[in-house]
Amino acid sequence: MVNETQHTCSASSSSRSDGGSSSGSESSKDNSRCSTPILDADRHERLREKMRRRQDAGDRWFSLEFFPPRTANAAVNLISRFDRMGAGGPLFIDVTWHPAGDPGSDKETSSMIIANTAVNYCGLETILHMTCCNQTKDDITGHLQKAKRLGLKNIMALRGDPSGEEWEEEVDGFNHAVDLVKHIRNEFDDYFDICVAGYPKGHPEAESYEADLRHLKEKVFAGADFIITQLFFQPETFLKFMKDCQAIGITCPIIPGIFPIQGYHSLRQLVKLSKLEVPQEIKDVIEPIKDNDAAIRNYGVELAVSMCRELLDSGMVHGLHFYTLNREVATTEVLKRLGIWKEDPRRPLPWAVSAHPKRRVEDVRPIFWASRPKSYIYRTQEWDDFPNGRWGNSSSPAFGELKDYYLFYLKSKSPREELLKMWGEELTSEESVFEVFTCYITGEPNRNGYKVTCMPWNDDPLATETNLLKDQLEKVNRRGILTINSQPNINGKPSTDPIVGWGPSGGYVFQKAYLEFFTSSEIVTALLKVLKKYELRVNYHIVNVKGQNITNAPDLQPNAVTWGIFPGREIIQPTVVDPVSFLSWKDEAFALWIEQWAKLYEEESPSRMIIQYIHDNYYLVNLVDNDFPLENCLWQVVEDTFELLN
Amino acid sequence: MVNETQHTCSASSSSRSDGGSSSGSESSKDNSRCSTPILDADRHERLREKMRRRQDAGDRWFSLEFFPPRTANAAVNLISRFDRMGAGGPLFIDVTWHPAGDPGSDKETSSMIIANTAVNYCGLETILHMTCCNQTKDDITGHLQKAKRLGLKNIMALRGDPSGEEWEEEVDGFNHAVDLVKHIRNEFDDYFDICVAGYPKGHPEAESYEADLRHLKEKVFAGADFIITQLFFQPETFLKFMKDCQAIGITCPIIPGIFPIQGYHSLRQLVKLSKLEVPQEIKDVIEPIKDNDAAIRNYGVELAVSMCRELLDSGMVHGLHFYTLNREVATTEVLKRLGIWKEDPRRPLPWAVSAHPKRRVEDVRPIFWASRPKSYIYRTQEWDDFPNGRWGNSSSPAFGELKDYYLFYLKSKSPREELLKMWGEELTSEESVFEVFTCYITGEPNRNGYKVTCMPWNDDPLATETNLLKDQLEKVNRRGILTINSQPNINGKPSTDPIVGWGPSGGYVFQKAYLEFFTSSEIVTALLKVLKKYELRVNYHIVNVKGQNITNAPDLQPNAVTWGIFPGREIIQPTVVDPVSFLSWKDEAFALWIEQWAKLYEEESPSRMIIQYIHDNYYLVNLVDNDFPLENCLWQVVEDTFELLN
Repeated sequence: MVNETQHTCSASSSSRSDGGSSSGSESSKDNSRCSTPILDADRHERLREKMRRRQDAGDRWFSLEFFPPRTANAAVNLISRFDRMGAGGPLFIDVTWHPAGDPGSDKETSSMIIANTAVNYCGLETILHMTCCNQTKDDITGHLQKAKRLGLKNIMALRGDPSGEEWEEEVDGFNHAVDLVKHIRNEFDDYFDICVAGYPKGHPEAESYEADLRHLKEKVFAGADFIITQLFFQPETFLKFMKDCQAIGITCPIIPGIFPIQGYHSLRQLVKLSKLEVPQEIKDVIEPIKDNDAAIRNYGVELAVSMCRELLDSGMVHGLHFYTLNREVATTEVLKRLGIWKEDPRRPLPWAVSAHPKRRVEDVRPIFWASRPKSYIYRTQEWDDFPNGRWGNSSSPAFGELKDYYLFYLKSKSPREELLKMWGEELTSEESVFEVFTCYITGEPNRNGYKVTCMPWNDDPLATETNLLKDQLEKVNRRGILTINSQPNINGKPSTDPIVGWGPSGGYVFQKAYLEFFTSSEIVTALLKVLKKYELRVNYHIVNVKGQNITNAPDLQPNAVTWGIFPGREIIQPTVVDPVSFLSWKDEAFALWIEQWAKLYEEESPSRMIIQYIHDNYYLVNLVDNDFPLENCLWQVVEDTFELLN
Repeated sequence: MVNETQHTCSASSSSRSDGGSSSGSESSKDNSRCSTPILDADRHERLREKMRRRQDAGDRWFSLEFFPPRTANAAVNLISRFDRMGAGGPLFIDVTWHPAGDPGSDKETSSMIIANTAVNYCGLETILHMTCCNQTKDDITGHLQKAKRLGLKNIMALRGDPSGEEWEEEVDGFNHAVDLVKHIRNEFDDYFDICVAGYPKGHPEAESYEADLRHLKEKVFAGADFIITQLFFQPETFLKFMKDCQAIGITCPIIPGIFPIQGYHSLRQLVKLSKLEVPQEIKDVIEPIKDNDAAIRNYGVELAVSMCRELLDSGMVHGLHFYTLNREVATTEVLKRLGIWKEDPRRPLPWAVSAHPKRRVEDVRPIFWASRPKSYIYRTQEWDDFPNGRWGNSSSPAFGELKDYYLFYLKSKSPREELLKMWGEELTSEESVFEVFTCYITGEPNRNGYKVTCMPWNDDPLATETNLLKDQLEKVNRRGILTINSQPNINGKPSTDPIVGWGPSGGYVFQKAYLEFFTSSEIVTALLKVLKKYELRVNYHIVNVKGQNITNAPDLQPNAVTWGIFPGREIIQPTVVDPVSFLSWKDEAFALWIEQWAKLYEEESPSRMIIQYIHDNYYLVNLVDNDFPLENCLWQVVEDTFELLN
């Protein structure tokens, strides 16, 4: 059931009696309050509200814990993992705080930047861990301010492990997690949702289990919103702990921390760190198979599944928190077996949303970045307001420059050798470039037997939707219309359509056909002649790297090319072809030839010169067929163009 | 041809190189710059730009002059005339300044308020005349400030006739129109477009024709944008004048003032006032028929048509200005015979737009005021911003109260006796009210033989579009579902459709079916049961006069019920069902029962008590069928409701 609400209120009247003399801003209809109607709850609620709503609805959910990687390459892999595991629908992920790894810095591998990437670029609700011992108030406040600025909204407040043997409590210092909780509430009021750690067996340093429960209660009463527990090996450990918490008045959500055993050594290490005792019956199973990784993992998955089932069946547990150790297989397997891994093909909007609070209302983007959403987010990160409802007639949407094409969350995921195999160790002519594009479209191996699974303009294989156009795309790419973005026209398909649907159910989605490609000036000349015939039916925009630029966009207005009509909602038009933004996109699109392709080859090499030639001489073209209820005419436009050339 | 423009510019790049450090408002995507894409030119250009554009396009146009009426009743008639003559497509109208009639006051009949009504309520581009002699600088500035505040953008700057025999030029005073032109430019910079008067035969008080031309040049060089001439009787008078103007360097548009002779006495009076000489050949024709009004008018029309043709054929004239004397027939006839009366059934938006500059971007309104646009404009006149692109989730759109139902531009156009004939001299039961509604729908005469051509909620006969629903509407009104607003569902008709089309050509328009009615609590109870079956397909909102209020609108969000998709444009959604505004509308809708209907009858009379009973006990209901591509289910909802009742 979607959010049907029945409001029954005895409103006297909503029209204010200001006697007709109202004026000034109070009486104005403030449009800035508009917000995107799609998935409001998910985009607008705080984490604790989402948790409460899921619990009230009887939904079961999970969350995933990761630690920051050591190297930039590992960071790239971790972020791919965020994207893949994000697809399973975690309620949130969390990123641990590594005091030794400069966790609040701007390094690609810092806890702060990894959490920032998860929120902004992967669109994941994220909790950043933070430890407080051995730190000054100013350090802590600085970290929190930075987290807030980056769009992080949730903090896991921890004491951390005191460094040095000599550590002693400081007066007025951060001696316990509760001090950090209080500090956050003092300095940041209710801005952050705060999570604290619970120890089902009691904290190893606590005087007693009971004393530790009292500490936990202090943390909650100081302002924590929910609790995630340390790992444990038996469900009854958790259930007892939960009852004990409730008995002393802790009413906030308590989420069990689940650790699927993935290997003998990682288990031993974790146990050592957390000072936990592995139960004898587990030891008895593991010791004999300790050199058989697969067997241990299988056992770990079994064990975790059965423990999770018991927890969920108790009725006291709604969410499960997984210590992934940055690995994918075991956790995903447990989640799938529990049936709570929800790969929902439904999208709230046709593009990947960001979870930064300032982008909550964003519901319109130019179509150009459809295959490079992270780059779009990067180039608009300094914006204070994001378009909603309408893109508008902006004369200068100030896109940030994309200078460093190797920024880790933007760079291609494949290493150089692999790219060369896909895109050609050696190019001999423009036609060999045509072939690369064609192979990417068809999915067939290239002449050296390698499949082309990505292109400089597309990080991923062809979208399912683009597959609808595959035959025509293949034909035109072979002849030098080098397509980088396209969508078919859609005249009112259900919003639940598995390929083109998006948004809440019960709606209808629409698209205007779109085609974007690089091509030679010879083809452009013919194309322009052909386009005259189509008049207003086809909007076009043609530009070369120097910015020479021809369009028939009326008054440089944006053209909505994707929109949806939903029950009880205003209309959403999430993608537009904006002639002004196109000029910012063309800088990026042309630069990708050089940055991602030409630079694979030696300077002055023929291969590099071919790409350089295309970069310098080709045009970037976009075409929109405005008559979405009729058959897409863009293929005819291209056909006519080729005919004119022959 | 619609506005196809081909922009060819060599843009270096529109992305600013602010090194990624851009922040603050400069880097934000400012949504307030959004503007309605429909008929931008017409809504955004100043009068002088419109004039220039029409001239460049070779279009011929006309304008209409009116004087302020003497009585409130005459004002109501004049405003109806604005609406009717506005339909012919004048480029502008102008309203003369009557120094004796307190022209800058708030009286219903003042020049200022008549011009205000034309701009704001009739949506007409309007020039307000203003005379300056015998007035202080402060008076003039006050008038101009008021005009600006009311949304007037054009002033005809005149000297006016000095009152009193003793009038002498004052040093630094307003002695000539040129002083007023200078004053406007000094005090209001370029805000107003300024028009000045030209005298094809020379001003009667001028030393000479040549001296008068020099005065005219002074006015233009002081900042006037165009010239409207005094009336004349022979085309060569104007053409010579125009050439003489050009010869001395006057290059702005000069619009001939056309006076279709409409009667012997009005001609004589005008000639006396303007100190013109009627040519002998006209006198020769008129004198013999001076008592035959029809013959004189026919002659006047002939004469005007032939003079206008000669002017237009000269190639020097693009627009014609008509002195209407507040009459309709002769001018309309001349315009129709010239072929420049353009009754364009095409609408820029589905509702009547206002010409106040602050409403330029407005392109969304709640559907409730569809038949009472003037009331909507009145109740939102204090707003500083108007919704565009999206209505948004406003918790308190502060509608001004509609206290004075007899405000002249809102009140019903029919007198009491006529209303009684239509709505019943005597009501005997609720059913006799049902009959009135039914007759309004069918267009059949009521039991006393009178047609019901208006209702308290509808100033005009049934819209053509509503006619599409006539049969069903008749059926339900007979049974006590008293409909006041409805629209059929439309799934992508061409924007040029004569009944449901609006906006530029080449687009597609859509609607969700809508039904709004008053009905008894008994029917509401059954209706609510039926609506359960339809779940999210039908959004409903039900409220009584006390504000008791039931809706299934998700989060009280607005529901777009009319939208259009156009070539090269963002999507327009001009009408929404907004659950919040509905509560303001219901106050007005319920009050109309009393203010416009009950009050026709004696207090305590049975007729009045019946209306009062309905007012106190009925509910106002709106229903939207969200599944616009399917057959409208609202009739089935109503049918099911009646079935449940039986």
